[in-house]
Amino acid sequence: MQRIPFQVLQDEYIRVLLKTGFVPERAALVARRFTENQRDGVYSHGLHRFPSFFASIRANGIDIHATPIKAGGLGAIEQWDGNMGVGLWNAHVVMGRAVELARTHGMGCVALRNTNHWMRAGAYALQATEAGCVGICWTNTIPLLPPWGSAGVRIGNNPLAIAVPPAERPMLLDMAMSQYSNGKLEVLHQCGQKLPLAGGYDAEGMLTRDPGAILAARRAVPIGYWKGSALAVMLDTLAALLSGGLSSHQIARFGSERSVSQVFIAIDVMALSGESALADLVKSVVDDLHQATPLSKNEAVRYPGEGMMRIREESQKLGVLVEETQWAALRAM
Amino acid sequence: MQRIPFQVLQDEYIRVLLKTGFVPERAALVARRFTENQRDGVYSHGLHRFPSFFASIRANGIDIHATPIKAGGLGAIEQWDGNMGVGLWNAHVVMGRAVELARTHGMGCVALRNTNHWMRAGAYALQATEAGCVGICWTNTIPLLPPWGSAGVRIGNNPLAIAVPPAERPMLLDMAMSQYSNGKLEVLHQCGQKLPLAGGYDAEGMLTRDPGAILAARRAVPIGYWKGSALAVMLDTLAALLSGGLSSHQIARFGSERSVSQVFIAIDVMALSGESALADLVKSVVDDLHQATPLSKNEAVRYPGEGMMRIREESQKLGVLVEETQWAALRAM
Repeated sequence: MQRIPFQVLQDEYIRVLLKTGFVPERAALVARRFTENQRDGVYSHGLHRFPSFFASIRANGIDIHATPIKAGGLGAIEQWDGNMGVGLWNAHVVMGRAVELARTHGMGCVALRNTNHWMRAGAYALQATEAGCVGICWTNTIPLLPPWGSAGVRIGNNPLAIAVPPAERPMLLDMAMSQYSNGKLEVLHQCGQKLPLAGGYDAEGMLTRDPGAILAARRAVPIGYWKGSALAVMLDTLAALLSGGLSSHQIARFGSERSVSQVFIAIDVMALSGESALADLVKSVVDDLHQATPLSKNEAVRYPGEGMMRIREESQKLGVLVEETQWAALRAM
Repeated sequence: MQRIPFQVLQDEYIRVLLKTGFVPERAALVARRFTENQRDGVYSHGLHRFPSFFASIRANGIDIHATPIKAGGLGAIEQWDGNMGVGLWNAHVVMGRAVELARTHGMGCVALRNTNHWMRAGAYALQATEAGCVGICWTNTIPLLPPWGSAGVRIGNNPLAIAVPPAERPMLLDMAMSQYSNGKLEVLHQCGQKLPLAGGYDAEGMLTRDPGAILAARRAVPIGYWKGSALAVMLDTLAALLSGGLSSHQIARFGSERSVSQVFIAIDVMALSGESALADLVKSVVDDLHQATPLSKNEAVRYPGEGMMRIREESQKLGVLVEETQWAALRAM
């Protein structure tokens, strides 16, 4: 592992994206998101993911020049069509639109259909906080989990993100509906490690901490078992319904993830509640969590997003952590 | 157990509520909700809960004549003050207001402060479906769970409900952030039964299926461990922030649950997506789940709300199931 300046990493992404035909504005945005994900410690959606992001553009027929357009709406809520464009770009545009709607209506919602993988859910919730808004967003995915009561993969893990301003020190929840991501299972399996808690079922239908057994059985467990399964179904239904787009089981027919449905909500909390009420409330919630007696002396109770902020600050001070071979691979692209 | 007609049960509630001083309109609404909860199989918030609902009015200084009033707002989102009124009434009024806002703006949100226990979260999400809207609502509660990383109770279980129309056959998610409710733990403990899955930690900090050990240690587990803990914190923060009301840790100071904060969202999906698009999408999601191979021959995979609808239909056909002593207690009130 080595550390490199944010700008150096971002410039390298921009170089590769421009070379592939991205127009400068989009190259800059996509590069910024990949670099921020790495900076914030979301390594699953940084350098690690960039090669497959690229491969997916060709494999899934993603149009890097497509522009999302408004397809319908009713005041504070709009339907947009992503025109099979780049997921990160589409998500950026429509969360920007949700913020505009929030300026007019107090809150705004854009439901986006026919778009593609946005990488990190939290990025767009955080984008809303940069405008002083609460951001809420979720996406559906290709089926990755069995619904409760079955062993057959049929529901998405449908990541959900919620962020509360201020942008400089946000509260952030960014979670998929699976207890562990497939990426996490794969990494631990390769290292021969067990999961800290049961993360799925083995081929015999027994709960297990063995990531290899879960991957082999394709039975990762949803958070809260039947509860996360139901929440995943509802998030998928809402995303497809509000956007007029596809549901997870319809995406499954493509064989690979494409043309997903997403929801973006912004609430102008600075205008609604005021900056000082916001600051006071967040401080009181955070302080209360920090006053909790920790189970481990070395690990105080954290508020959602605190671990991410710690990594971000480290990255800003010391440079962004990169894995040498991944960094070399980007430079060679 | 015996079965009695819906109307007979509802009339009995109305009699008791009128006797206590509820005005007829409110008595009718509160009675209807308690009866519907029982009809739908939500026995924890039906007859079982009515005596403590009554006790709570006196103990917590709830004003049965209070009217919720608008305290602020910005177009599609409004803040209301519940004036320490009856939770079921306040929730009914403001979800009605959220629906009105959705008629004007496509979607509407009311954040309600200074209100009281609404009993069943799902009731208000379902109320939105009666107006052809998607309903989303959540509440904070007095602290009931330890945040992840601590053994000390500090966060609410903050029930969340999401419902999709049509009202006659809705999809409904209605879940608290704890894997099992305290009520469930108590009932199984009294019967000497184990939980089907680990529901918390014992005094030694080991995950356990023993409900008595969890109750003694006061360490029920949030759904998805760190994930449900973080989601509970975010839902509480949003409820308090958007309503200008109290957060769980502030409610804790009262010693009993009162003056909670809630959020109600309605989306006019009939106007946005159209009735046939809605019907098609919901049918396709439900059909896909029903096509999943079940783990047990006797238990097909269900869509969220399907189990509830089955109990409702049984209640409508055969009468509402009541426990004799609870039913006798109501008649004696």
